[in-house]
Amino acid sequence: MEFEKCLLDKQKRVNERLKELVSNLDAPQIIIDSMKYSLLAGGKRIRPILSIAICEALGGNTEEVLDVACSIEMIHTYSLIHDDLPCMDNDDYRRGKLTNHKVYGEAIAILTGDALLNLAFEILLLSSKNSYDKRFIDAAFEISRASGVMGMIAGQVIDITNVGKLLNENLLKNMHEKKTGKLIEASCNVGAIIANRYDALPLTREYSKNLGIAFQIVDDILDVVGNSEKLGKSVGKDAKNNKPTFVSLYGLEKSRELAKEYSLKAAELAIKIDNTGFLHALTEYLLYRES
Amino acid sequence: MEFEKCLLDKQKRVNERLKELVSNLDAPQIIIDSMKYSLLAGGKRIRPILSIAICEALGGNTEEVLDVACSIEMIHTYSLIHDDLPCMDNDDYRRGKLTNHKVYGEAIAILTGDALLNLAFEILLLSSKNSYDKRFIDAAFEISRASGVMGMIAGQVIDITNVGKLLNENLLKNMHEKKTGKLIEASCNVGAIIANRYDALPLTREYSKNLGIAFQIVDDILDVVGNSEKLGKSVGKDAKNNKPTFVSLYGLEKSRELAKEYSLKAAELAIKIDNTGFLHALTEYLLYRES
Repeated sequence: MEFEKCLLDKQKRVNERLKELVSNLDAPQIIIDSMKYSLLAGGKRIRPILSIAICEALGGNTEEVLDVACSIEMIHTYSLIHDDLPCMDNDDYRRGKLTNHKVYGEAIAILTGDALLNLAFEILLLSSKNSYDKRFIDAAFEISRASGVMGMIAGQVIDITNVGKLLNENLLKNMHEKKTGKLIEASCNVGAIIANRYDALPLTREYSKNLGIAFQIVDDILDVVGNSEKLGKSVGKDAKNNKPTFVSLYGLEKSRELAKEYSLKAAELAIKIDNTGFLHALTEYLLYRES
Repeated sequence: MEFEKCLLDKQKRVNERLKELVSNLDAPQIIIDSMKYSLLAGGKRIRPILSIAICEALGGNTEEVLDVACSIEMIHTYSLIHDDLPCMDNDDYRRGKLTNHKVYGEAIAILTGDALLNLAFEILLLSSKNSYDKRFIDAAFEISRASGVMGMIAGQVIDITNVGKLLNENLLKNMHEKKTGKLIEASCNVGAIIANRYDALPLTREYSKNLGIAFQIVDDILDVVGNSEKLGKSVGKDAKNNKPTFVSLYGLEKSRELAKEYSLKAAELAIKIDNTGFLHALTEYLLYRES
């Protein structure tokens, strides 16, 4: 109960700040509307919440990490918009609503993704410029590497170029480590960086690596056994699209075991980072989530 | 002759550095190949050359501005790849070669654009991180604003949402000011910033605004009277696509007069920035170019 209230509070704070960050942009109405449509469509806000929770746990200031955290959510949202396009995963629903290109058309959807990626860096650079403080530059660089061609984009390339192929464990892990893992890792690391606790980076790295894999295995499981209404997106699409997943490689039971194993490791590390128990509870919540 | 040699030298320097910047990236081969295909396809390298020329003219260091300049060329190239997509301008040729999506398919083309935009910021942030020098942060912020939803992306949105409509002069100018003008302006301003000559910014701003409009009018003229072989892209596509242009608004003769008028203003300002004559010659070269 305490955890849930704390989670909702953090989500609310992120949502309010995201809304502010896309207001008062001097740009054509249609692209503002489209950015808001996808960015303010809900979502669990896991990544920014990880940044905030870790920053707070390590003695940092919430105000200082908030925009950095929100920039990560923008990058995550841009990646979803582009991944959903007809030439990629061709998805119709996301976060319980029609995907961006279904509402605004492909051209505006592509530009909306571009705009959100760019805006994330505008925000990160404005934070850097407001203080010229090395922490903000380090955090922005960390995020840029995670979202780039050696991180998230590489994962998406491995994904779309291996449809219909049976990946071995190493390649599957490599794909997920890049596609979802890198940005989750950056979310955790920037929490430590903005808290000026560079000494905690080995711990946040190890925590986030385990969390990232557990998170992705649960995602793969939910695509098989999940409820599309709760998930807000279509289910069974990995199998339909012939995508390599943990479930297709190991089956459901073994995948569940693996998710627990990685979550357990992550949960152990969470306690070392955060003695309030929030990060530990969040880690368990992500394992047992239904969406 | 002296000008041409100097121009070629600068182009060579930019091309060599661009090549280095996309080598040794730890990413799937196909996206590396695709990034190289579009980024190293030639092009006049006007934007990075403006940055370098202005930085040098104002007493700055070429080595310091080189990566900043190259990041702008990456952003320009990403915008071309996305603009050429079937759902946008649907172009088959660019810089004398098949467009990216014609060779690599739409999914990889979109990801290649994303990757180049992201890599530009990785490079800008690495420059910032290597020195924690305010000049690099200011330059990166300047570029991020120019390429974002209040700059270049706004211009592209105005463009694709006004196909077939007759724009008035103000809206047409606003579109071009954003679509091409903002990034040209940033290219010039970062030259002054990296040279640590913030006092010259009013001058580089005024110069680049005039240059940007002249550049765009010449672009519109070349689409009507140009040679597709020299241009390396299809001609007549503005009229075919029913796009608003300076030529459709004013006709050819008046457009030529306007191009000269803005170039003349830019050329006058060029002398104030650069007493070597290179920037002045470059400004004239852009007015009389055939591609």
